[in-house]
Amino acid sequence: MRTSVRQLEMPFMNRTCDEREEGILESERESVSTVVYAAFQDINVMIFLGFGFLFAFMRRYGFSGIAFNLLIAAVGVQWAVIMDGFLFRFQNWMMLINLMSIVTAAMSTASVLISAGVLLGKVNPVQLVFLTVFEVTAFSANRWVLTEFLKIESQVSMMYLFIFGTYFGLAIAWIQSRPIIGREIKRDKEKSEPISELFSMIGTLFLWMFFPTFNSMLTENLAEKQNAVYNTYYALAVSAVTAFAMSVMTNEKGKLNMMHIRNATLAGGVTISFSAYMINYPWIAMTLGLLAAMISILGFKSMQTCLDSVFQIHDTCGVHATFGLPALLGGISHVILLLTAQWAGDFTTLGYQALVEGGYQALVEVGAIFFTLFLSIGGGLFTGINLKCKIWRPPQEWNYFDDQCYWEFPHLASKL
Amino acid sequence: MRTSVRQLEMPFMNRTCDEREEGILESERESVSTVVYAAFQDINVMIFLGFGFLFAFMRRYGFSGIAFNLLIAAVGVQWAVIMDGFLFRFQNWMMLINLMSIVTAAMSTASVLISAGVLLGKVNPVQLVFLTVFEVTAFSANRWVLTEFLKIESQVSMMYLFIFGTYFGLAIAWIQSRPIIGREIKRDKEKSEPISELFSMIGTLFLWMFFPTFNSMLTENLAEKQNAVYNTYYALAVSAVTAFAMSVMTNEKGKLNMMHIRNATLAGGVTISFSAYMINYPWIAMTLGLLAAMISILGFKSMQTCLDSVFQIHDTCGVHATFGLPALLGGISHVILLLTAQWAGDFTTLGYQALVEGGYQALVEVGAIFFTLFLSIGGGLFTGINLKCKIWRPPQEWNYFDDQCYWEFPHLASKL
Amino acid sequence: MRTSVRQLEMPFMNRTCDEREEGILESERESVSTVVYAAFQDINVMIFLGFGFLFAFMRRYGFSGIAFNLLIAAVGVQWAVIMDGFLFRFQNWMMLINLMSIVTAAMSTASVLISAGVLLGKVNPVQLVFLTVFEVTAFSANRWVLTEFLKIESQVSMMYLFIFGTYFGLAIAWIQSRPIIGREIKRDKEKSEPISELFSMIGTLFLWMFFPTFNSMLTENLAEKQNAVYNTYYALAVSAVTAFAMSVMTNEKGKLNMMHIRNATLAGGVTISFSAYMINYPWIAMTLGLLAAMISILGFKSMQTCLDSVFQIHDTCGVHATFGLPALLGGISHVILLLTAQWAGDFTTLGYQALVEGGYQALVEVGAIFFTLFLSIGGGLFTGINLKCKIWRPPQEWNYFDDQCYWEFPHLASKL
Repeated sequence: MRTSVRQLEMPFMNRTCDEREEGILESERESVSTVVYAAFQDINVMIFLGFGFLFAFMRRYGFSGIAFNLLIAAVGVQWAVIMDGFLFRFQNWMMLINLMSIVTAAMSTASVLISAGVLLGKVNPVQLVFLTVFEVTAFSANRWVLTEFLKIESQVSMMYLFIFGTYFGLAIAWIQSRPIIGREIKRDKEKSEPISELFSMIGTLFLWMFFPTFNSMLTENLAEKQNAVYNTYYALAVSAVTAFAMSVMTNEKGKLNMMHIRNATLAGGVTISFSAYMINYPWIAMTLGLLAAMISILGFKSMQTCLDSVFQIHDTCGVHATFGLPALLGGISHVILLLTAQWAGDFTTLGYQALVEGGYQALVEVGAIFFTLFLSIGGGLFTGINLKCKIWRPPQEWNYFDDQCYWEFPHLASKL
Repeated sequence: MRTSVRQLEMPFMNRTCDEREEGILESERESVSTVVYAAFQDINVMIFLGFGFLFAFMRRYGFSGIAFNLLIAAVGVQWAVIMDGFLFRFQNWMMLINLMSIVTAAMSTASVLISAGVLLGKVNPVQLVFLTVFEVTAFSANRWVLTEFLKIESQVSMMYLFIFGTYFGLAIAWIQSRPIIGREIKRDKEKSEPISELFSMIGTLFLWMFFPTFNSMLTENLAEKQNAVYNTYYALAVSAVTAFAMSVMTNEKGKLNMMHIRNATLAGGVTISFSAYMINYPWIAMTLGLLAAMISILGFKSMQTCLDSVFQIHDTCGVHATFGLPALLGGISHVILLLTAQWAGDFTTLGYQALVEGGYQALVEVGAIFFTLFLSIGGGLFTGINLKCKIWRPPQEWNYFDDQCYWEFPHLASKL
Repeated sequence: MRTSVRQLEMPFMNRTCDEREEGILESERESVSTVVYAAFQDINVMIFLGFGFLFAFMRRYGFSGIAFNLLIAAVGVQWAVIMDGFLFRFQNWMMLINLMSIVTAAMSTASVLISAGVLLGKVNPVQLVFLTVFEVTAFSANRWVLTEFLKIESQVSMMYLFIFGTYFGLAIAWIQSRPIIGREIKRDKEKSEPISELFSMIGTLFLWMFFPTFNSMLTENLAEKQNAVYNTYYALAVSAVTAFAMSVMTNEKGKLNMMHIRNATLAGGVTISFSAYMINYPWIAMTLGLLAAMISILGFKSMQTCLDSVFQIHDTCGVHATFGLPALLGGISHVILLLTAQWAGDFTTLGYQALVEGGYQALVEVGAIFFTLFLSIGGGLFTGINLKCKIWRPPQEWNYFDDQCYWEFPHLASKL
């Protein structure tokens, strides 16, 4: 991170100022730090408020949805700052920390929040804290391998968080929910209520509105940063419109479903995240947004029941349709766009070599997807087995999706 | 827009960079884009979250209020980018697009959201999309005439959106609601509930807090931009206090009415929008805020019933009192302030000529108001007649203001 | 405020531009004003939305919680701009006003909102307006004494608002609630409902997320400003995690309590506010966050009942535990940190003199805490006696905590 302004040494807890930075004028510093600070607040709103309220859609699990999200995020950011410090900013036994470290840490934590979405209502807060520590470590390691060995750019390697978070969560859910038969009572609690859907829309809208910040945050080149903002905006806008159309079309009565709207509007932002910085034509961004929303709603309709009944994987928030499938689409489209860009641009001048180089880079990206899938599923299985220990006192089946298991209610109301 | 940093060509979908911009240093670019980006996010929050939750006040129409707002805004912004591109940024068969284009498009879309407020609960999503496309076109044409022919400054010509949106909507409502007799059942559904009022307050507060950004966004001169921020803030603060006082005073039991608070607090921002950039004395801004809140609540009390019973126009959100009347007051006060500024400042030096010039400019502004009224009512009547077609399958009277007409509920709850 | 860009003269209502500022280039101005503008919006969100929704936790007092907060804040900011102008920016019979004046005024108003939290539900809006005018005056005077006579830095003197607001409110509550016996019915209305707790979480999260802006806003030195951001963030993160742990530990059934989470997560930000700019080691910030959350929850458990039964002071929002105790801890820790910094850094070079100087500065800070306590309790007692006058028509006991006393309901629902 070349824009770092102030840095500090963590392990021995005293600060040093990097000499390279000394030369920066005060006024320049101010403008740099402001750029980062505004985006830092957008990301904070996404992580703490956006995901929190997104997860508040269940009738009886609103408190836990919001509050456990805060707990995970607060633990996750601290742990991710330390992990990122060790892996990416460790020099002379010092860890360099600046505002960008916190932003990066908050983005890494998003992978945990996505996994938590799969498990929402089925694990207790202590399990969630363990999950957080473990998943942040695994995701940072994944990002480190992608950046250091596969030489994938920093802003792209971060976006694998959507794939990582989803499959990590699904692997845990697979371990967990093996012997479940007859979930009739649980199903009822899992439903949403109109009011809880409205709270959930607050979260969705903040995620939707600030997604351009998320996708452009780590891009350092200014022109690419702006590209990322425009493309994400276009993709999200198309995605929102498509969500309405698809929701009506896939319903037999021709009615809208709020869960579709919530999930599919975000899909465009997820899909575009990999390649937002490099797309030069709005129609590509828009097409990706369209495909993302379609795949998300179709995935929601078909895969959800399939996951549930065939694989015995229970995905509370429909994370697979919201983040998983669109992210895979994003990864694949990134490979295709890289190939196209390389071949279209350089073929005439570079000839045969360009074909090879472009092919090699595409292969590396494909490898990165598979590596991420492998590490996330592996890590998820390992974590899932650990979470089954009696030490954690996991909640019983009949306590799933119920706030009353964890919260003392001021009033014995059973409304939300 | 001289601050544009990157531009792109839409019709043939490949980008060019304007030569004038080439000279800008990277660091300068960064600061320029940040200024625009922060405001861009404020405007996004107003359009997507602010209006959305503002429209969620009905007991049984919360889903539609929020989600249809998202649909309209997503369609509207995309169409407005194209319309603005053709009308204002079209050179050499290329359309120049930058971050300011999206901001301008989002502001234009606000006019549609205001019209949608009049029709809230009485039209279906397909009708809303048609309305959006038509109204964005009409409003962009209106702004083009005002800017190109009447030579009204860009930031002022945009603010006619409040007048345009209101009367466009009212004209449609007039066409629509002709033969309505006996609305007893509808009236009940139209009511708010305490919880839906609280959701609505989220929207109101975000609109209220970010109104200074809205009013200062298009002003290019920095001193005028800051003026616009201060004056809008003063007007809004006075407007909020006045809303409380007026609400108590106009109620026979001396009680407050949440609908008054919601509507009248915003009135100050609407009224000041025309002249925020040019007012040099806080007391003028404060007086306008006071008058705006008064006219809004008095309008709400008297005009609302009058509109309903005499003109047979049904205005769901009380848009006429929140946006229409304060905007007319704003337009008139802008004329008066222009005259005063011209005559007070230049009379001694320029003599007779200043009188004439000031008078001419004032006349042009009066003309602009009438032109906007004419085009909005005309466009509204035309759209209204089109919307009555059976093709759109407009909702039946007994389905008005009811989410169940459009949404599949997870739970057969009839709470909100 | 050296960063002021545009200034205006209030009493005679015509503007002048300070000559010192003339030399600033347009581009520099832009960046300065943007820095302030982004933070200005964060502070606005905290004051108008954050506190408003934080106060919406009572079942039947949601409307009043949010709307009266808006009323107090709108009146308070205007009055504080004038008071600050007279005390801090008055030159040649002119009052200089810029964006920072509004930010400072909004921060001063926070002291009133905290006092209003103590009295929430027990006073009417007219009493609140009187309270606002009086408390803003007293707090500005307090800040003036601290800055001018005790030579305390501007950013520190502002943070006494937490102590001032709490004890001002408690003093009024002590005067008010003397002869109250048997509060059974009131107790029931005072309770929260799950839905109102969720609304309250919206406010809490916005306060929590934007606290770094609040604590770094008035610091002018850029390195110290960034320090303030980091330290506040660390303290808040630790505070949030501690809140969960402590809430479980202090509950006999091992359950979480939403009121604890809401209160204790903010405690870290309050405690760190005094010394955020000067702490050089993350672990100090983290320790303060830990202690703050602990003291807040323990205070909530023990002091609350003690305050209520022994001192007959009724504190509706638990302001004493959320803001009062953590702020006292913050004041004391600031004294200790000042002593440590002075003695550790300078003793070897300056010898005996450093000891004396450090001791003197620490003594001044202790004096500032006692002066603030004295003025706030004195002012509170005076205001409390005034508020008991029959002129204000204070609400009767059985109308406490009830919206129906002030609001006309569209629907006779008794839900929230």
